[in-house]
Amino acid sequence: MDLYKFKLDFKVRDYECDLQGVVNNSVYQNYLEHTRHEFLKSVGIDFAGLAERKINLVVIRAELDYKFPLKSGDEFWVGLNFERISEIRFAFFQDIFRKPDSKPVLKAKVTGTSLNERGRPFLPKIIEELLAPGD
Amino acid sequence: MDLYKFKLDFKVRDYECDLQGVVNNSVYQNYLEHTRHEFLKSVGIDFAGLAERKINLVVIRAELDYKFPLKSGDEFWVGLNFERISEIRFAFFQDIFRKPDSKPVLKAKVTGTSLNERGRPFLPKIIEELLAPGD
Amino acid sequence: MDLYKFKLDFKVRDYECDLQGVVNNSVYQNYLEHTRHEFLKSVGIDFAGLAERKINLVVIRAELDYKFPLKSGDEFWVGLNFERISEIRFAFFQDIFRKPDSKPVLKAKVTGTSLNERGRPFLPKIIEELLAPGD
Amino acid sequence: MDLYKFKLDFKVRDYECDLQGVVNNSVYQNYLEHTRHEFLKSVGIDFAGLAERKINLVVIRAELDYKFPLKSGDEFWVGLNFERISEIRFAFFQDIFRKPDSKPVLKAKVTGTSLNERGRPFLPKIIEELLAPGD
Repeated sequence: MDLYKFKLDFKVRDYECDLQGVVNNSVYQNYLEHTRHEFLKSVGIDFAGLAERKINLVVIRAELDYKFPLKSGDEFWVGLNFERISEIRFAFFQDIFRKPDSKPVLKAKVTGTSLNERGRPFLPKIIEELLAPGD
Repeated sequence: MDLYKFKLDFKVRDYECDLQGVVNNSVYQNYLEHTRHEFLKSVGIDFAGLAERKINLVVIRAELDYKFPLKSGDEFWVGLNFERISEIRFAFFQDIFRKPDSKPVLKAKVTGTSLNERGRPFLPKIIEELLAPGD
Repeated sequence: MDLYKFKLDFKVRDYECDLQGVVNNSVYQNYLEHTRHEFLKSVGIDFAGLAERKINLVVIRAELDYKFPLKSGDEFWVGLNFERISEIRFAFFQDIFRKPDSKPVLKAKVTGTSLNERGRPFLPKIIEELLAPGD
Repeated sequence: MDLYKFKLDFKVRDYECDLQGVVNNSVYQNYLEHTRHEFLKSVGIDFAGLAERKINLVVIRAELDYKFPLKSGDEFWVGLNFERISEIRFAFFQDIFRKPDSKPVLKAKVTGTSLNERGRPFLPKIIEELLAPGD
């Protein structure tokens, strides 16, 4: 049984590394975001399309535990789980592992909500369905 | 009395905004990092110089509460406090406020440590002094 | 007499440096873009505002001569000139100099045009005026 | 017969898009750099490893023709050719095409050289061999 609902493979790109010779801390948020958006696309939710219609999925809190740094040439994958945590909030649990040794790289919890054109919390039906129990 | 030990002024740059028309979530970590490094420089600690000598200040945990998004043209400032939280760990408390209305934008706690060439926790004397009580 | 119509001051941020310990090549385009947008703002043209109205100023060619790399801690400025080079095209000439020794860092020519909602070349009146002879 | 010595597949990530809703101009240099480094790795040249030994492959000129913008969700590939253009300079010719329709996105020529620890032009033997006629 798989521990993650969604996984995505990556490879470090040299421009993502900083003067310490490792991937810069902020770049992990790029990896996490891209994984969330690819996951959403895989279940029929288009982040960019929603944004064009002024429905914005937004992050309200990110907790990132940096376990081990990625370096030039490293391959890795991001695993993703999620759950509804309130009427209008959902949480993504995202972990990064280096390949091929599965060394834990980062552990994150990213809490989000969805806002309508007036900036009010609003879950589109497609997200309601995604978060429904039993899914 | 000032609430922050260090402050730095910024202005949003358009390339930092994403397709939602606001500053991308990951970019706030850039703002926070730059503020920490400028603070360190102001007390005589050169992040890049330490890295060259293989002493690496590293983030081990970041908690970011996104309160309100910055947009194209926005000016803002980052306030910074810090404290030693264990023998070898220190925490930065960093808040972002939009100008001129002081609207809270982001509230963060960034926990770090310092590693020597072999990747072992190691606080250089200059950081010991910075973290000493009474400072 | 000043050689540039517009100038903007910057300071290198450590996250902009890559594993060679210098500012990554792509980041200079960020500096150049931010300078162009600040220049445009200074003459009353809001890049983001135009984009919202689906009028997009776009780069069609960039030529960048890298003279000397910027490093952590470097301060520098970008000088900007521009001219209309055809009915619908304009060119920005942008040079970067390190401070305080004025060492040439980068010399660039960035050619652009403006597109309307249907992607057709279209110069808004405010840009026509900017590019008018004698300006 | 293949027109390119090396090809690499990519997919646009949403954080690479700016407030115009398309990939930011500077990001194409990231794509081009990553392709060059992957190509070099494929022929046994490790960019990061060289940098650690203070041998730095550097870009001295970049010419980028922007033909058509990439957007959220687009897949594309970068084709690469190169040739020696002087005793100590080499040029990469890199073209980007959208998938699956092969629409031309960007055409670039990136001129580089290699510097030793003292910043003097110096081609390591492995690069000499790469650039040798008949290769």
